[in-house]
Amino acid sequence: MIQTTENKEEKAIQTVGSFLYTCLKNEGLTDIFGVPGDYNFALLDLLEADDQLTFINARNELNAGYAADGYARLKGLSALITTFGVGELSTANAIAGANCENIPIIHIVGAPDSHKQENQELVHHTLMNGDFYVFKRMFEEISAYSAVLTPENAAIEIPKAIQIAKEKKKPVYLMVADDLVTERIVERETKFDILQEDKQSFDDAMNHVKERIQTSSSTVLLADTKSKSFQLEKIMEGLAEALHIPVACMMYGKGAFDESHSHYIGIYAGDFGEESVKAVVEQADCVIAVGLVWADTNTANFTATIEQNRLIDVQPYSVKIGTAQYNNIKAIRFLEELSHSGLRQMKEIPDTVFPYDNGTVEEKDTALSASNYYPIIQDFIKARDVVITETGTFFYGLSQARMKKEVSYIKQGGWQSIGFATAATFGACIAEPDRRVLLFTGDGSLQLTAQEISSMLSHGCKPILFVLNNKGYTIEKFLNTETKNQAYNNIPDWSYSQLPNAFGGEAYSTVVSTVGEFKEALKQAEIESKDKLCLIEMKIDDPMDGPDYVKQIRAHKKQ
Amino acid sequence: MIQTTENKEEKAIQTVGSFLYTCLKNEGLTDIFGVPGDYNFALLDLLEADDQLTFINARNELNAGYAADGYARLKGLSALITTFGVGELSTANAIAGANCENIPIIHIVGAPDSHKQENQELVHHTLMNGDFYVFKRMFEEISAYSAVLTPENAAIEIPKAIQIAKEKKKPVYLMVADDLVTERIVERETKFDILQEDKQSFDDAMNHVKERIQTSSSTVLLADTKSKSFQLEKIMEGLAEALHIPVACMMYGKGAFDESHSHYIGIYAGDFGEESVKAVVEQADCVIAVGLVWADTNTANFTATIEQNRLIDVQPYSVKIGTAQYNNIKAIRFLEELSHSGLRQMKEIPDTVFPYDNGTVEEKDTALSASNYYPIIQDFIKARDVVITETGTFFYGLSQARMKKEVSYIKQGGWQSIGFATAATFGACIAEPDRRVLLFTGDGSLQLTAQEISSMLSHGCKPILFVLNNKGYTIEKFLNTETKNQAYNNIPDWSYSQLPNAFGGEAYSTVVSTVGEFKEALKQAEIESKDKLCLIEMKIDDPMDGPDYVKQIRAHKKQ
Repeated sequence: MIQTTENKEEKAIQTVGSFLYTCLKNEGLTDIFGVPGDYNFALLDLLEADDQLTFINARNELNAGYAADGYARLKGLSALITTFGVGELSTANAIAGANCENIPIIHIVGAPDSHKQENQELVHHTLMNGDFYVFKRMFEEISAYSAVLTPENAAIEIPKAIQIAKEKKKPVYLMVADDLVTERIVERETKFDILQEDKQSFDDAMNHVKERIQTSSSTVLLADTKSKSFQLEKIMEGLAEALHIPVACMMYGKGAFDESHSHYIGIYAGDFGEESVKAVVEQADCVIAVGLVWADTNTANFTATIEQNRLIDVQPYSVKIGTAQYNNIKAIRFLEELSHSGLRQMKEIPDTVFPYDNGTVEEKDTALSASNYYPIIQDFIKARDVVITETGTFFYGLSQARMKKEVSYIKQGGWQSIGFATAATFGACIAEPDRRVLLFTGDGSLQLTAQEISSMLSHGCKPILFVLNNKGYTIEKFLNTETKNQAYNNIPDWSYSQLPNAFGGEAYSTVVSTVGEFKEALKQAEIESKDKLCLIEMKIDDPMDGPDYVKQIRAHKKQ
Repeated sequence: MIQTTENKEEKAIQTVGSFLYTCLKNEGLTDIFGVPGDYNFALLDLLEADDQLTFINARNELNAGYAADGYARLKGLSALITTFGVGELSTANAIAGANCENIPIIHIVGAPDSHKQENQELVHHTLMNGDFYVFKRMFEEISAYSAVLTPENAAIEIPKAIQIAKEKKKPVYLMVADDLVTERIVERETKFDILQEDKQSFDDAMNHVKERIQTSSSTVLLADTKSKSFQLEKIMEGLAEALHIPVACMMYGKGAFDESHSHYIGIYAGDFGEESVKAVVEQADCVIAVGLVWADTNTANFTATIEQNRLIDVQPYSVKIGTAQYNNIKAIRFLEELSHSGLRQMKEIPDTVFPYDNGTVEEKDTALSASNYYPIIQDFIKARDVVITETGTFFYGLSQARMKKEVSYIKQGGWQSIGFATAATFGACIAEPDRRVLLFTGDGSLQLTAQEISSMLSHGCKPILFVLNNKGYTIEKFLNTETKNQAYNNIPDWSYSQLPNAFGGEAYSTVVSTVGEFKEALKQAEIESKDKLCLIEMKIDDPMDGPDYVKQIRAHKKQ
């Protein structure tokens, strides 16, 4: 099942640090996120001297982790440097999030000098117990691989860790003592094991799938989250066209399929989503799901219904047809071959409803509310935009907006850590400086990681930040149906539009509360965002205003 | 060695949640820090209905953890509520810091409903692998105890966890499923084991110590960090007076001894600190150290020198005299008994130098620099102030300032996580609303946790925040002697004085760059801080300006 392959890295004599950076550059990285600390000086000194890699300072380590996540979602991989203990631990939430969401991040931790570790000296940033592996053990729980780098093992461990991150789409953890960064590595035959396909399993699964599709009168392709992290978007498009079948996305999978494509029918979200999409998916006799994660917030609290006998469950390295499980199959090759099978369904692609396609015509001075701003936002989003939505009402409301061609859509579907989106926006801006990046966040979420607006300003990023000011954790108020007061779900009322100024940067920022003001601000941001960061604070009076989707959640919870 | 004691908690029929809160109230807690999330609704709903406990929202979980730490340093214990996965993991740095620094925090995590856990459902805030104990395992590495609460075990586990936190001065971790919070607990005989003293060991150590002191011609008391967390301050004062010996503090132990006391001689910090203090400690033939941690940043990078044959090392639960180790002794009783031994040293308390006692007389328009602002700050600090210093140049520079009576001095000596101090200031303000709280932070550190200024504003806290604006991680520049450029140690230049306004609060804030402006601002803050939060931004031109202590560090590093 396992094969050893020879790595073809350049064999020039290198140090631990330079070899690490060479490997990362070979993966196409041009930036590494992080925060300095005295245990990563050697790493950062070397990085500063490197012409092809840029160190991107974030304002704290959690935010650096989120930014690395956002970067990896666009570039396929990212790297993060933190300092021992205090730095690395602050990223734990971001790293666990990357694990949950299948995002490969190479997390590099600068550690105390090796002789201090050997002598078990009590040094700052430790628990004062002489144990230098406490934090590594913690990260083992949320990383696909971890290693303590030495000059003797670096030539093996570094490529291995990167390979595992890429194959599993998970974060990995590399710790390196500050004094070893500049030590010359011992050359090694860099062999490591990667997953090999089982040809028999592949062929059997293929025959089984073909048979299922041939006998199906209505097949649907359902794209979910892992199809994005494993970069199967283009292959799915080819497959949908070849088979001539409609395509829906799950909530987590939004953005995995071109929403302007004629085969796209919308988001399938059980009882909470659009009825017409639900009808197509639930009436199909064969559902080819790619990268499906059957989780609560992905399935409208498990109201989504796909019986096992209708399901072809294609995972990155396996295929399950009904109850038959086929292992050691690469989805990327499987879907490719399936799209050349000559199979083609004769039915028309069904018409479905896109809720915001016919925005209501509103008077200029109508107060902003979910019923009017979602259609306006849908119109504003352009082809090739990077759209980042925060956990909260925007996550649900924007799931129903139809995105134009080549929009990259970023959110945390499963991990749902509020604060993620603002810092991920920073990472996205660094990854794709030539694309327009739009952040949609609530006020509560923004407050957790607001300082990353400063990083965006100081790095010359020009995103448009939409801040929904409804004075609280509104989504939580929708979810907690038990209690009246919930003062704990209220938050301080910031002057969001003043933040860029306080952070010492130049920006276009404005506050809007009516439809007319919002439209005007969008017009202005369209122009201003060419030169500078834009922040639009959307003031909403009713703290319980929200899109239909969250009203459905609340109704369901109340049952 | 172990004794079982019966806990005398009230045995009223209670739920898991109400029993938990009853136990915390019995410990004198009036506030619990945290951030809401949908897995802690039941905990927060119950808390909101409780008249004697207040939920204190922080702006994010790391900051909530730091605030809880600051609170516990004044009240002896604190509690923190986070939500599963995303919330709890963000506190990892703060909890590890509390572990390192011996601060007892009861960390309560609201988890998914028990039936979801039993069914291993894929729910949000998990790694999507059905494992609900991943994060608990991570926290086991940095907590003294952990438990998953159930109605069956709550009556045992809750008092046990609190007792362990108090005895070990460490954080503990309690996880409770949201649906079990309101379940009635099963009554239990709440017995648990606590450390019992070994009387023989105690007596032998006492005799040995008396013998050492009797034959000593110059004994010194050296107070360190654990003497603070184990609340031995008053007992040490009695001991120093009874034995008539001088008292120095270690860097981590600053604040453990009344610095206005006639026996106090200053901070002992090896080659980096005051020479006259060094002379007394290093020439003493007997050093009674209480709660000593022999760590790098506590010992001026191990330049401090106390030979083992001169040392009586009193730890919270042991005493070591030379090479003789005596275990199972409670320091609190040991020091008390020793102070009634009748022993008394006849020598005068030696005179030492307090570096800032004779501040230079400066022209009004002299630029602010370490050479002039430290003496001014020393003057400004009043008796009973709470002084919180951030890791950075302030940590070292203020260590040499002499504090007045009953000042509480808070800093992270060993963990040294930048950003801690700002959030800990919030916690301190909640713990002691009637005392003046002063924060001394650098700009770099402030940026990590700046949003906690918003929490202070919204909770009506009135600290005075000193922000040293020297455009970077200046301490890091002092520590990295290798590299010229270090662009990574620069930070965006914020308008710190505008932060309170952006955070929607009313404050007195000002920017100063000369001695005259600084003195004027202090005068104003003296008045304004009665009504509102004050923020004084101290602009320093030379990014390498710093107190003598950090210059000594740099010189030492360069050797």
